[in-house]
Amino acid sequence: MKFVLAPDSFKESMSAVEAATALERGIRSVFPGAECVRVPMADGGEGTVNAMVAACGGEIVETEVQDARGRPVLAAYGYVAAEQLAIIEVAASAGIHLVAAADRDARTASTYGVGQLITDALDRGASRFVIGLGGSVTNDGGAGMLHALGARLFDSAERDLDCGGAALARLCRIDLEGFDPRARSASFEIASDVANPLLGPGGTTAVFGPQKGADPQAVQDLEEALTVFARVLTADSGRSVAELPGAGAAGGLGAAFLACFDSRMRRGVEVVMEAALLERRLSGADFVFTGEGSIDGQTLHGKTPLGVAEAAARNGVPVIAFAGRVGPGSEVLYDQGFAALVPIVQEVSDLPQALTDGPANLERAAATVCRILALGLSAGAARGAQTS
Amino acid sequence: MKFVLAPDSFKESMSAVEAATALERGIRSVFPGAECVRVPMADGGEGTVNAMVAACGGEIVETEVQDARGRPVLAAYGYVAAEQLAIIEVAASAGIHLVAAADRDARTASTYGVGQLITDALDRGASRFVIGLGGSVTNDGGAGMLHALGARLFDSAERDLDCGGAALARLCRIDLEGFDPRARSASFEIASDVANPLLGPGGTTAVFGPQKGADPQAVQDLEEALTVFARVLTADSGRSVAELPGAGAAGGLGAAFLACFDSRMRRGVEVVMEAALLERRLSGADFVFTGEGSIDGQTLHGKTPLGVAEAAARNGVPVIAFAGRVGPGSEVLYDQGFAALVPIVQEVSDLPQALTDGPANLERAAATVCRILALGLSAGAARGAQTS
Repeated sequence: MKFVLAPDSFKESMSAVEAATALERGIRSVFPGAECVRVPMADGGEGTVNAMVAACGGEIVETEVQDARGRPVLAAYGYVAAEQLAIIEVAASAGIHLVAAADRDARTASTYGVGQLITDALDRGASRFVIGLGGSVTNDGGAGMLHALGARLFDSAERDLDCGGAALARLCRIDLEGFDPRARSASFEIASDVANPLLGPGGTTAVFGPQKGADPQAVQDLEEALTVFARVLTADSGRSVAELPGAGAAGGLGAAFLACFDSRMRRGVEVVMEAALLERRLSGADFVFTGEGSIDGQTLHGKTPLGVAEAAARNGVPVIAFAGRVGPGSEVLYDQGFAALVPIVQEVSDLPQALTDGPANLERAAATVCRILALGLSAGAARGAQTS
Repeated sequence: MKFVLAPDSFKESMSAVEAATALERGIRSVFPGAECVRVPMADGGEGTVNAMVAACGGEIVETEVQDARGRPVLAAYGYVAAEQLAIIEVAASAGIHLVAAADRDARTASTYGVGQLITDALDRGASRFVIGLGGSVTNDGGAGMLHALGARLFDSAERDLDCGGAALARLCRIDLEGFDPRARSASFEIASDVANPLLGPGGTTAVFGPQKGADPQAVQDLEEALTVFARVLTADSGRSVAELPGAGAAGGLGAAFLACFDSRMRRGVEVVMEAALLERRLSGADFVFTGEGSIDGQTLHGKTPLGVAEAAARNGVPVIAFAGRVGPGSEVLYDQGFAALVPIVQEVSDLPQALTDGPANLERAAATVCRILALGLSAGAARGAQTS
């Protein structure tokens, strides 16, 4: 019997890797001889590097780069040498979790460190990238990243601009002459569940600026600056990307990727599934187990288990999803490829206890499901034998 | 497909009847054509009458009798006319829940009302009785019940004794001449999970007296009184029962049943299972669903789900148990006939919420189990077909 274990992380309780391990322990307690293929999942946000390194058999690389404020930070990314594949979470260098609320300055925050990470991976031999866009504190349109990779951003006097989004108000020209040719020829899969365009009332500054420390005046100034940036970027890259869905992801970093790189932007889970070869690993599987912290009818759309369920459905493999919480209304998901939704809590408990018990509860829930499957298998086999 | 639904009550959340109904709803949402046989269970304690009336297709009878203090109380019992079967919970008349803590007097509390209930059922035509012994506030050795059924208890001057256990210190003779002959010829199944003898340090007064309002002096007086009672009962009934296990159940009511009735004392769940014809209903069943509020490795022994599991095992039907709480260590139960233990909570919640949500959670858990069974059935059928 072959099980594919493709859970997301259970937020604040366990990583996707830990979840897959707990599932395997539960399965093996009932079916000791089962083949268990662990393919930990992620949606492009936190945990993507660890999940993909585990799924693809890569390594974690650590290197010192600049955070959004220009301070040194030790950032980790994933590298799979056999596939020349680098997995980078933007948040590792430009992350909001790295800057205290009082220190956030949306005008000057820079994605320079993201470019440094890409350079480090290129030096290592990377020709393919998966970039997770979640969790940034920046609003610079990706200008910092372009600069780190050799592009130059000039004002009307051909002086280099300062770091950050606000300085883009004075942008006159982007010189891509020195842009790293390895970055240009590499392929980038951009994992993003954000579909906002770069500008306007639904754009990155208006929607995400305030949570990155922008007051109303800063929002207005940054909107004007990114408008200039969009115009110059179109002129100098030859691509008009500002209105594309996802151009506004990660403070406009999405726009820079779309304009200056060989890139494709897709739902995070799809990028991860493809890079982790999920569909290939589904071949011959009897069951897929997935899961995440919370599942309900309102919030699942686009999330990891749904992506896994869609992939499994394409391959005719039934999916069982586990969750710390199976909320009301989740029954609608039975129409979307889920065979069963299984809550893992074993008794009344408060949230801290449930988070602590997560791995043990998931293991027990997986074992219980296998016991029920075993009942059905033997009853079904008896019937199948009778019928034929 | 045939399911037998034999849950106990989920204490403070739902009765056994409600639990069986919730299970059936969950099953039918997945297998609309399934045959569902509801056999709500009980262990001889609270809920036994309702569960058995539902399982056996009887009626609830209400009649006014005396409570342990001699006050009028409207008491209910179950009657199944087709089988001349009465189901009586001692607690309906002699129950501790009917007497406020400050009013409890172990010296005078009487089981007279239990005898009245038996008389009422005999008038209705009962020839078989199931008596649940749990929850009494009495310590009278069943003297009150014997009196209500026509026995006379005399002191040395051939005067009738007062009510209650303390008066038995003056007992000289029990005259069974007027004892209702219908009670004598009827058969009594006594459901009791209490194995204490009548007297001594493990006897009814020492162990249960204090929670019925007996202070240390009352415990000593009642112990002496029941010692007299045991001697006279043996002499006048011709049976020595004081040391039998269960003679000390319900304040010594067990002793009166054992000495003066055609009675058999057994584990509550066994009595209920037999009276509800559980084993006959298991015939041809594919799965048994049982459950109760809490299951763990320490506390399950002797409880309802274990009895159901044993009966199911004798009939080769796999058992799945549902519980509000599946506690640590419950895995040991997998060696005792349980195929799976399924917690019904769907997310983190406090106890009041979990109790309120009990029926909905049980329905959802049953549906989820059926979905997993269906997966196993179809996979098993495919294999069965391949194999043959």
